[in-house]
Amino acid sequence: MPFICDIKEKGAYAVIFTSTRTRDDDGVSAMGAKIVELASKQPGYIGIESVRDERGHGITISYWKSLEAIKKWRENIEHSYARDMGKTKWYGSYALRVSKIINSRYFLKDSN
Amino acid sequence: MPFICDIKEKGAYAVIFTSTRTRDDDGVSAMGAKIVELASKQPGYIGIESVRDERGHGITISYWKSLEAIKKWRENIEHSYARDMGKTKWYGSYALRVSKIINSRYFLKDSN
Repeated sequence: MPFICDIKEKGAYAVIFTSTRTRDDDGVSAMGAKIVELASKQPGYIGIESVRDERGHGITISYWKSLEAIKKWRENIEHSYARDMGKTKWYGSYALRVSKIINSRYFLKDSN
Repeated sequence: MPFICDIKEKGAYAVIFTSTRTRDDDGVSAMGAKIVELASKQPGYIGIESVRDERGHGITISYWKSLEAIKKWRENIEHSYARDMGKTKWYGSYALRVSKIINSRYFLKDSN
């Protein structure tokens, strides 16, 4: 799967999740994989880009066709997994921002 | 400097830069530092969050008070540094997206 999402949809939304990870890493990778899997099955999902560095700083951006799709995905996460657990255990701090994409520019090679 | 930007401004914009780095790493860290320094001196700049992992996948998000501020910053970068050089030399692929923040949620500890 390429790292950079090549979004064809006009008027897409980006959910920006910025976080610091605590030292207690138990289960967070599996949790992350499950959230991505859940997102990809959700109507309105376009793609996801995710990076975490060796300091534990992470940025994950998921792209969506509508605010309604984002709302349903978040409700789904809350029902399926304990978001509050992540808040207190896995993440030191986080910011979650929903934004509407206004314009985009791409420079994509075959394998990005 | 904390990793996560605590944005107080309403109606802020996020410039999302997602990139893969090529193996030719010559000068890219110095360039990145200069771009951040240039941004922080620019009117309308709010903050920046940046992560790159060991695979060379990177996400940098800069936050701005207005589209006008973003436009001026981009013009400034183009004048001061060779953006095209980054395109061909430092980055394998990239996407640059300008978005308007609709809502935000924070969970910030003292040191994030």
